[in-house]
Amino acid sequence: MKTSPTTNTSTSPTTHSTRPVTALDLATPAVADLPDENRRYFEKCQQKLGMIPNVLTAYSHNVAQLEVFSRFYNELMLGESELTPLEREMIAVVVSAENHCFYCLTAHGAAVREYSQDPVLGEQLMMNYRSATLSARHRAMLDYASLLTRTPALVTPADAAPLRQAGFSDTAIWDICNLIGFYNMTNRIASAVDMRPNEAYHSQHR
Amino acid sequence: MKTSPTTNTSTSPTTHSTRPVTALDLATPAVADLPDENRRYFEKCQQKLGMIPNVLTAYSHNVAQLEVFSRFYNELMLGESELTPLEREMIAVVVSAENHCFYCLTAHGAAVREYSQDPVLGEQLMMNYRSATLSARHRAMLDYASLLTRTPALVTPADAAPLRQAGFSDTAIWDICNLIGFYNMTNRIASAVDMRPNEAYHSQHR
Amino acid sequence: MKTSPTTNTSTSPTTHSTRPVTALDLATPAVADLPDENRRYFEKCQQKLGMIPNVLTAYSHNVAQLEVFSRFYNELMLGESELTPLEREMIAVVVSAENHCFYCLTAHGAAVREYSQDPVLGEQLMMNYRSATLSARHRAMLDYASLLTRTPALVTPADAAPLRQAGFSDTAIWDICNLIGFYNMTNRIASAVDMRPNEAYHSQHR
Amino acid sequence: MKTSPTTNTSTSPTTHSTRPVTALDLATPAVADLPDENRRYFEKCQQKLGMIPNVLTAYSHNVAQLEVFSRFYNELMLGESELTPLEREMIAVVVSAENHCFYCLTAHGAAVREYSQDPVLGEQLMMNYRSATLSARHRAMLDYASLLTRTPALVTPADAAPLRQAGFSDTAIWDICNLIGFYNMTNRIASAVDMRPNEAYHSQHR
Amino acid sequence: MKTSPTTNTSTSPTTHSTRPVTALDLATPAVADLPDENRRYFEKCQQKLGMIPNVLTAYSHNVAQLEVFSRFYNELMLGESELTPLEREMIAVVVSAENHCFYCLTAHGAAVREYSQDPVLGEQLMMNYRSATLSARHRAMLDYASLLTRTPALVTPADAAPLRQAGFSDTAIWDICNLIGFYNMTNRIASAVDMRPNEAYHSQHR
Amino acid sequence: MKTSPTTNTSTSPTTHSTRPVTALDLATPAVADLPDENRRYFEKCQQKLGMIPNVLTAYSHNVAQLEVFSRFYNELMLGESELTPLEREMIAVVVSAENHCFYCLTAHGAAVREYSQDPVLGEQLMMNYRSATLSARHRAMLDYASLLTRTPALVTPADAAPLRQAGFSDTAIWDICNLIGFYNMTNRIASAVDMRPNEAYHSQHR
Repeated sequence: MKTSPTTNTSTSPTTHSTRPVTALDLATPAVADLPDENRRYFEKCQQKLGMIPNVLTAYSHNVAQLEVFSRFYNELMLGESELTPLEREMIAVVVSAENHCFYCLTAHGAAVREYSQDPVLGEQLMMNYRSATLSARHRAMLDYASLLTRTPALVTPADAAPLRQAGFSDTAIWDICNLIGFYNMTNRIASAVDMRPNEAYHSQHR
Repeated sequence: MKTSPTTNTSTSPTTHSTRPVTALDLATPAVADLPDENRRYFEKCQQKLGMIPNVLTAYSHNVAQLEVFSRFYNELMLGESELTPLEREMIAVVVSAENHCFYCLTAHGAAVREYSQDPVLGEQLMMNYRSATLSARHRAMLDYASLLTRTPALVTPADAAPLRQAGFSDTAIWDICNLIGFYNMTNRIASAVDMRPNEAYHSQHR
Repeated sequence: MKTSPTTNTSTSPTTHSTRPVTALDLATPAVADLPDENRRYFEKCQQKLGMIPNVLTAYSHNVAQLEVFSRFYNELMLGESELTPLEREMIAVVVSAENHCFYCLTAHGAAVREYSQDPVLGEQLMMNYRSATLSARHRAMLDYASLLTRTPALVTPADAAPLRQAGFSDTAIWDICNLIGFYNMTNRIASAVDMRPNEAYHSQHR
Repeated sequence: MKTSPTTNTSTSPTTHSTRPVTALDLATPAVADLPDENRRYFEKCQQKLGMIPNVLTAYSHNVAQLEVFSRFYNELMLGESELTPLEREMIAVVVSAENHCFYCLTAHGAAVREYSQDPVLGEQLMMNYRSATLSARHRAMLDYASLLTRTPALVTPADAAPLRQAGFSDTAIWDICNLIGFYNMTNRIASAVDMRPNEAYHSQHR
Repeated sequence: MKTSPTTNTSTSPTTHSTRPVTALDLATPAVADLPDENRRYFEKCQQKLGMIPNVLTAYSHNVAQLEVFSRFYNELMLGESELTPLEREMIAVVVSAENHCFYCLTAHGAAVREYSQDPVLGEQLMMNYRSATLSARHRAMLDYASLLTRTPALVTPADAAPLRQAGFSDTAIWDICNLIGFYNMTNRIASAVDMRPNEAYHSQHR
Repeated sequence: MKTSPTTNTSTSPTTHSTRPVTALDLATPAVADLPDENRRYFEKCQQKLGMIPNVLTAYSHNVAQLEVFSRFYNELMLGESELTPLEREMIAVVVSAENHCFYCLTAHGAAVREYSQDPVLGEQLMMNYRSATLSARHRAMLDYASLLTRTPALVTPADAAPLRQAGFSDTAIWDICNLIGFYNMTNRIASAVDMRPNEAYHSQHR
């Protein structure tokens, strides 16, 4: 929080930082007790991001899962793709907005603010992407993210036509579908277990 | 925006402040051309809030409507009630979150941050109030706001039982219903006409 | 009711007229105890309409709210606008039909019957406006009322295109949005508190 | 319509009675051209009800279907059952209200008014049965009708518990399910083909 | 079941065949105790189908209902129509898939497999007909079945345009509407009472 | 398909096996052209399962994605967990049934039939798990899978109470959430790109 402790006379009933990472009792180990490879990954996160994202801490009670989740996440968000890093984060935010996921909106909202250097854009995508002034490419991409999130049973390949008209290749469409799917997964996990985002995200890149 | 012009290399396609207040062509008068009473009200807003909220500018093409809307709004938000100003703003944000209203989430999100001095609480109510640590009173109040917003056809007086159990009087329940109703009105107007919130809201009370 | 007491052998468990105006205990004053201005307004209603609409009685426990609600209502329904009185009532009924609001359907259904002199039209709008034979103008207006009532999060200014094609000006579109918003407000208040319509409405203009 | 032609200056764009029975071109025979048995049934309707219900006219293009539909309808509505005729009509109206079916609401709304001798009850069931003052038995019955109409995929035998608590036998529950099912059928047929109710229904038993 | 008793080490908690036909206590008579006409019909089913469909057993506690239901069913499924038997079964399956009806999917899924001699097609229609490779005629027919099942309140005659474009006559459209309606009825009855399909269906025509 | 070619006079418009794996043009390499590690994995699938599951073929245009997806999948489905293999497959089927995913229902439906040795159970979970006779543990698990799939925005940790009452540890609840999330991902990808299940699944373990 940006307000200093001396002026903060908050009526809020909690100090957010004292909340555990999830509502489950998962016997999460201390970082020092993680296997070497995982510990090094966490230290790298700390150095690069200034924090260990709580989603990783949550998974760390099961290092086998932590490993495969991290790799899958990193491949989709940082791997080879026609989609820019900002575009991948935009999809993350719009899917999470449809599903009202506090964790993912907080973490990926900060990322949209960072990559776009446009803090208002981040707010718009969190609140209702339809209010944002978007390129035809981004509008088609986010309309599709909303549609496939809300009504997967009704979607057929014909619904990808606007993506092709906006210039996305079939490989990019595949990547878009994977990202939409991925956040439909994480949104459900995070909401179900009440995953807490690291508090630092809230004030980043405002 | 907090980023200075020299460092802002945004890839965003618009400068947000150049967007008109609504997508409709409403022949909105300059403040100087408003009738005296309305002009004085706008000047008072400018002095007190540092801005004329865009919802008032939008209504100013019809001063008769501007007058009655402002009075109704002021009575519900500032008039005599058991509900605190923060509670009224919390209802505004939660209703607007269910309806994904960019204008109302922006304006009333800033107000929740201001009244609560808790910027994270503001984010939580915008994203999903169920993630917030709330008193039993506030949880009952916001559950009801969500329910009456989403499924008005199914609501009966029996659904107010948790409000009474949380200590709200029948007069307070009436006020809660009016506030829920009011933002279900403004959300629809604002989304339909693409009303733009004043840009200053975004960075306030972070 | 049109059936005389002597022939009414109803199996219904209540006499409708004995139900209180709302399910809340609101310490509603007698008309004689209202402040002069409000009392005169109620007397005017009695003279002109043959009743004091129960929505006004409900608000009268808080004369400040009564005042601003009445003015807002009167401005939207009777103020300057391209929309005819019948069109405003048609919107009221169609919004209320989507929300299944007993109070508003009863009161505004009677008004549609009165203004249109077509009792079947009133029934059709209450049951399903899509069954009515409507001008292109009215069809566009009511399709929009249904859409903005049901899915406010999905509506953008592009959805107003059929209104413009049907000849509505941007000022009329603003008025339509305000009316749709207004009844989404009153529907929620009335259903939540189980507001009873004055019984006279049911048999009017049949 | 009750208003006499001389005073009717309706602005409505149609004379309702000139609309065909359905929007389909079904080569419906004249009554005189029907097979003897069907013709006698239609004549009996005319004598007893003062009209041939349009649903029968619609089916008459296929006398084999007319026969089996009529028999099924008559058995469910008039056959042996613990449910009173009024209760069967109440179910018809509540199912049709959830599905917004103009034809069925009109025809069965008139029947509820007739059997209950309570015109307000008819209106309440059409608008929102939750607003009606009902016995525990009728409330359970209509809650179930609403539930099974709206979310058939979620219903299990456990949802019938309130019906048993309200005193319905298993045979009566079977009959209730059949009636709910039947009107979910007719609502879809009538809405799909825009079936017109006989105009006389609108003013009956007001 | 195809697995022989000796190799079946199922962990499933029940033997399916011991479940009663419905969850209601309906005093269903033995076949031998049915009136002659009904008994002969059941014997004919046994001979022709190798079973008495459980839906008939369920209705047999009320022979008047059994009679009219069977006749209506037989007329719609086997009577004169432009629709082939396979098409009628396809509609049955797609409606039942939208409503997630175990009984109807099982019985009519077997029929689609039988008539089409294409066991995969049966699976596709049960799971999501949009995944099937269909003729334009069948695609239009099943899109309409899905639409009228899910949103009857929104359907108007204009929604039948794709059916006409696909070559269906108005009489065929009437039949399609009746079939869609019929399975919306039976789905609700079967799910509400937990009707068990005859176990033989599951392995037929695989 | 079990019917022999000589007797199959199918009226179905396609031979299912000629459909490509997805509707996207993804330049999928031949197995022989895959990198050694992936090729060996595919050969192992062929040996063990008698097929290379089409989801893997679909991912093989991007071997980096193929790698991380396979590992994540294998960890969730085969890794250390309190959940039995059958329970994991039951979750896969119930999530996929809510989302009407043809690919996942086909592949995981076969797995439920295999692990349970109960072909009817597989059908019930695909059609409507509420129709199955389930242990309290499995009922709680599948109710939760349905809830978190349909309404993620409304779920809080309180909704996991029935899982704890059914004996699941917090670690098992975490695994359940991950599985529900995972199939909400794959369902969306598979439906969006029209992924075809290997035809062999349909007739397995019937």
